[in-house]
Amino acid sequence: MDFSNIIGVIATDLEEVERVIDENIKSPVSLAYEISKYILGSGGKRLRPSVLILCSGVCGLDNGRNRISSAAALELIHTASLLHDDVIDHANLRRGKTSSNIMWGNQVSVLVGDFMLSRALQLVQSCESLELMKIITEATARLAEGQVLEVMSSMAKSEVSEEICFGIIKFKTASLLESCGVVGAIIAAASEKTKNFLGAFGLNVGIAFQLIDDALDYTADEKEIGKGVGQDLIEKKVTLPLVYALREASDVERSYVLKILQDDNSTDGDIPLIIELVDKYEGVNRTRAIAKGYIEKAKEALEHLPQNKYKTALNLLADYILERKS
Amino acid sequence: MDFSNIIGVIATDLEEVERVIDENIKSPVSLAYEISKYILGSGGKRLRPSVLILCSGVCGLDNGRNRISSAAALELIHTASLLHDDVIDHANLRRGKTSSNIMWGNQVSVLVGDFMLSRALQLVQSCESLELMKIITEATARLAEGQVLEVMSSMAKSEVSEEICFGIIKFKTASLLESCGVVGAIIAAASEKTKNFLGAFGLNVGIAFQLIDDALDYTADEKEIGKGVGQDLIEKKVTLPLVYALREASDVERSYVLKILQDDNSTDGDIPLIIELVDKYEGVNRTRAIAKGYIEKAKEALEHLPQNKYKTALNLLADYILERKS
Repeated sequence: MDFSNIIGVIATDLEEVERVIDENIKSPVSLAYEISKYILGSGGKRLRPSVLILCSGVCGLDNGRNRISSAAALELIHTASLLHDDVIDHANLRRGKTSSNIMWGNQVSVLVGDFMLSRALQLVQSCESLELMKIITEATARLAEGQVLEVMSSMAKSEVSEEICFGIIKFKTASLLESCGVVGAIIAAASEKTKNFLGAFGLNVGIAFQLIDDALDYTADEKEIGKGVGQDLIEKKVTLPLVYALREASDVERSYVLKILQDDNSTDGDIPLIIELVDKYEGVNRTRAIAKGYIEKAKEALEHLPQNKYKTALNLLADYILERKS
Repeated sequence: MDFSNIIGVIATDLEEVERVIDENIKSPVSLAYEISKYILGSGGKRLRPSVLILCSGVCGLDNGRNRISSAAALELIHTASLLHDDVIDHANLRRGKTSSNIMWGNQVSVLVGDFMLSRALQLVQSCESLELMKIITEATARLAEGQVLEVMSSMAKSEVSEEICFGIIKFKTASLLESCGVVGAIIAAASEKTKNFLGAFGLNVGIAFQLIDDALDYTADEKEIGKGVGQDLIEKKVTLPLVYALREASDVERSYVLKILQDDNSTDGDIPLIIELVDKYEGVNRTRAIAKGYIEKAKEALEHLPQNKYKTALNLLADYILERKS
């Protein structure tokens, strides 16, 4: 099912989120607004706002300002992290458009990311709940720690353990989605139990989302995913498809991969051989199978909650995460 | 008077601030802690915590957790902005030590800055006051906008108006110091009037602080200030000493300066000539005279408040800002 169909049930809310985002990135500093608008207009799925608003809906709340404000804030936090990620990765493609650091330079990208993050937190404040504020800044700290962890592990230019990979995934991606579930529940004044179930939904969907991302990096073509295949490898990022493949690889194959990782002058021509190796040892399929397990966990968490159209949408969204091609 | 003498009256509080900072930058991600500790240990004056705690003291509050937590948070926000500033400026010296981006790369510096900022906001939350949170995130947004404005103006590689210079100064530096005054008053449960006076103190001291910084960039030697003279010019940053000098300069002199600003291949050898020009037309002296006016305004704001040892210290601190050599 198409993502836009799944979230059709909250289409009006998501339009309102767009309006609130636009309103809150306005600045007397024209470039801050211009760049924020550019990157936010680059066609993200609005996964985080969708999860948050659907989770509120599951709890029986389908109107009110705070859902919209906090959903907008979480999208801004995510987008700010992309801006800082682009600096980090020397990536020149983001969602298929020229990335902001190529257009405006690293300097401006970093600062506009800071600006967006501050505006996001101001939006959260408008909800006047210390509990919300606490959860969201906690997730923001986790996100930054996850990104540091990822850079540390890529600097090591070596094999990475499955454990470290999952640490990065949880910190960098899953924490923010977990907070979307929790925040959705809090705004709907749901019980502690419900909060935990929706947090678990967000966390597990988040882990699966990143696992599929890592898998797609080995398989998708540029037109679909909006960035080149093997991008992680070019940046010396070892993700789970490679970790699982290396477990099965011969000594010579492992040595070859390590050599490429350690060689600062390795060329893009080395990448296809590693991709072939990952394919040979089913690294992508293993990763997908594990992602499937997390999606199942996410859906199990929903079982405890009352049936309504929002729950149906969350279940479809979980399936979509697994099946997406981009 | 020596800065450490001025703040002697709150020495124990400042030690506690250091302890709280250290406690709050701990992370399961070792590099995040390590870099945070390195940059925080690079000998900053702790101007922001000092202003905040002294302002609380003026209002009659000289104990309690929230002063310490928010003071630590404001220092973390400031330090995070330095980390991002170092990326921006391609600076290789910060406070006389090798800057973090040279040691760990742009990537990690940006992310650790993000981490520190999140931890700062978590600290503010521990004060459980939405008003504090609001003031501090507002100032954080201003800071980022001010940095974007500064980069925009340096990208223009051209003359900058006095108005733009003051805009940058207020957003980038003075807003955060203003918030230190306001937060100090709020924590002490001071009246709205007192809050405004201490906000005005912070704002005016902040403006003067940056003006003197800009002046020192034209005069101080590297050993004293911890970075090379003319650094702003190297980065194509036009500050007030040059703005005032250009008003008096001949057409040929102005054209020469503009040519250097526009020339991406201008060498460090061109800098001494511009410094000479600024000297000839008293650009530094004019800037210092204006800074003096702001310090007077800051001290006037204090006149409305009761006399105590903290007020004495704030007056001395204001004088110090003007006279400092580094």
